[in-house]
Order: sequence, then C-alpha cells, then structure tokens
Amino acid sequence: MPKPHPDVSRIRGYVFDAYGTLFDVHSVIEAGREITSDPASLSALWRQKQLEYTWLRSLMRRYEDFWSVTEAALRHAVRRLALRADEAQIRRLMDAYLRLACFPEVPGALERLAPRPLAILSNGSPRMLDAVVTSSGLGRHLQHVLSVDAVKTYKPSPEVYALGPQAMGIPAGELLFVSSNAWDVAGAKAFGYQVAWCNRAGAPEEELGARADVVVSRLDELPL
Amino acid sequence: MPKPHPDVSRIRGYVFDAYGTLFDVHSVIEAGREITSDPASLSALWRQKQLEYTWLRSLMRRYEDFWSVTEAALRHAVRRLALRADEAQIRRLMDAYLRLACFPEVPGALERLAPRPLAILSNGSPRMLDAVVTSSGLGRHLQHVLSVDAVKTYKPSPEVYALGPQAMGIPAGELLFVSSNAWDVAGAKAFGYQVAWCNRAGAPEEELGARADVVVSRLDELPL
Repeated sequence: MPKPHPDVSRIRGYVFDAYGTLFDVHSVIEAGREITSDPASLSALWRQKQLEYTWLRSLMRRYEDFWSVTEAALRHAVRRLALRADEAQIRRLMDAYLRLACFPEVPGALERLAPRPLAILSNGSPRMLDAVVTSSGLGRHLQHVLSVDAVKTYKPSPEVYALGPQAMGIPAGELLFVSSNAWDVAGAKAFGYQVAWCNRAGAPEEELGARADVVVSRLDELPL
Repeated sequence: MPKPHPDVSRIRGYVFDAYGTLFDVHSVIEAGREITSDPASLSALWRQKQLEYTWLRSLMRRYEDFWSVTEAALRHAVRRLALRADEAQIRRLMDAYLRLACFPEVPGALERLAPRPLAILSNGSPRMLDAVVTSSGLGRHLQHVLSVDAVKTYKPSPEVYALGPQAMGIPAGELLFVSSNAWDVAGAKAFGYQVAWCNRAGAPEEELGARADVVVSRLDELPL
C-alpha cells in the first residue's frame, strides 16, 4: 500500500496532456533537417506559433482545428526564418505529428496508475490523437481520448478542462491533471483539478497565479 | 483634396494601438542595461511573456491589469535568463513603461488626420496610458484613451475591440484601426474594423486568417 503523497488528496483518475507530456515531439525536429541546418530553431518557432495561434484564435472566436493551426504555424515559421519548403516537404513535416513516439517511461508509468481511469485531454484534433495513440501503442491504457475539438476552443479555456470531469464522471478536485506545459498547469489548476507539472526540462514556473500541487521530472514519479 | 485610398472605404475616425504603434518601447531596452549586457534579449522575452500572459489570463478568465501582468512577465524573464535584479531595479525597469516617447513621426501624423476623431485602444491599464499620453505630449490629439480594463479581458477578444465604436459612436467598418502588432491586426479585422498594419520591422504576416486592408511602414503613410 503506497503512502499518500503529502501534497495531494485522494486521486480517483488521471488526465494527461498529450504533446510534450506523453508524446515526444523530437521526431518533428528530425523531420526539419530536410529544410534547415538548424532544425531546433525551426521546431521552437513552429511550436511557439502553434501555441500562439491556438490562444489568439480562441480569443478571436475563430476556432480552426489543431491540424490547420499547426500547418499555419509551420508556414509562418518557414517564412520568418527565410527557409524554403515545397509542398511535399511541408507534408512530411506535418506528417511527423502523426507518428510521435511516447517518452520511454510512459507505458510503465501508465501501467502503474491502473486500475484508476486514465484519459488524454489535448489540443490535438481527433484524427491527430487517434494517430499518435495508435502509433505509440498507448491506447490500451486509456479510457478516454478527449480533444478540444468537442468545444471548439483551446486550452487554457475552462470549457476545455471541463471535458475531463464530464467524460470520467469524477469531480476535477479528485482527478490529477498532468502536463509538461507550465501554462497548461496554471489553466488546469485555475479550473479546479489537482495538478502535477512534469517539468522535464527544468523550466522556471510561469507567473500566472496558479501553481502545481506536485512537480515531477518524469511520469513514473507521479503520486498514486 | 487627397485621392481616396483604393483599399479602404470612407474613414470617419482612427483607433490606434499604443505600445509599439504610437509609443516606442526602446527606452525599456535601455533600462535593461542595468541588469544585463544583453538587454535586447531581456526585452524580447519580457515582451513575449507579457503578451502570453494577457492571452492566457484572458482564456483562464483570471484578468489582472496590464501593470501586474507586465511585472509578472518581467520577473519570469529575469529568472529564465538567470539574471539578478533587486526590487529597486525591478521598479526602475517597470517605471520605464510610464515614460515612453512616441515615434518621431507620430505628432505630425496625428495632426494630419484631424479633424476626424482619434482614439487609443490599448491593453495598458488606465494609469499606464495616462502616464504615456502625458509624457509623450499626444493628449491634445486624442478624443478617447480606451483601456481593456473597462471589460477585464485583453486583445484580441471582441469585447475589447467593441470599445472603439462604442466610445466614438461610429461603426467599426467606418473606422481605421492601426496597429504594429500583426496579431492585433488580425483581431481587429476579425471584429470588423478597416485595418492598417504599421509594419515598422518588416515582419512576415501572421497566419490567422484575417489580413490588413493597408500596410504602411510609418504612421505618416496612413490613408486619409
């Protein structure tokens, strides 16, 4: 019987962010080598713009799904870095999002949390999430794969975080929300989840007025 | 009698973004020299986080005013860049926001647009806007200084853009909204303004599905 974690109360289920939390986006960087000698810069700007566009479109109330936003962000990043990419290269970069591996500790970590219900709650479109859940082999651990597409807005909108408790039939305060993105941690905490920040990169906290209950550096350190 | 601009219809008034559009934030970079040999990097990260926090707090429905958000962004940027700043240095950096100069062409450009009504519509808090309008001497050109604080959310929320037509009594489609921020251009266009992008830096467009009607590189090139 594991000792209860001092900073969380009873956890009846887990809700995971997808990109960067369960799934390693490193293969996206690899795909960038085809068009630039500095794929890390392309990947960083692409990711930055991808997130910005989700926030901006949500505020503008001009939702488009994550596949569209991700492609728009890529096209902007390519232009801003003065790179050249033909349509076939754009397609190959985008397709990297459909074949992401999970981080090595993830299957064992999810196994350890069962039999409590596990869910993904992600900005990804249903098609993108289906693809990575299949390619990573994580499907058998997951009771729910929840996409923001159901509410046509993005994290950190409360409507998105509400999808977890709704689908699982468990109040947010009895779920542990797990994300590697510090701003997503703040959004989930503001909504009412218990929250674990998987701070893989040792990043400083965001100053958004809502802190994680627990900070881990890998998913196999999550409290039971 | 000036020739009508081919890409805009009749303009009955002008609504200006403040920071980066009317007011030059360069003095903020200068203030950074006190704590780093690379004040441009500090300034860029500070600005990036300042905007991110406005977007994230708006989506989280946890509005705090622009002074608070700006200070939170500064503290995060200092920590992330592994700099050291004591409270007096933080105060001096923040105070730079209260004494911004306008860009050199601005007073003449605003003079030229009169007698049509001119307004500022800004993320800035009322106190911050009062301070820069006074320090820059632009007050006599402006009929309205409108802060998002009236609606407790930030650009690009439609509630913010609605403040312009409401205050001026002119429909958005008969106003020219002017901003140097490409994402603000997209937000104003999506709301229904005619929009001019003052692209001072020659930046590439954002891919947000809404384009400026006119692009200028200085405010004295605005259509009449």
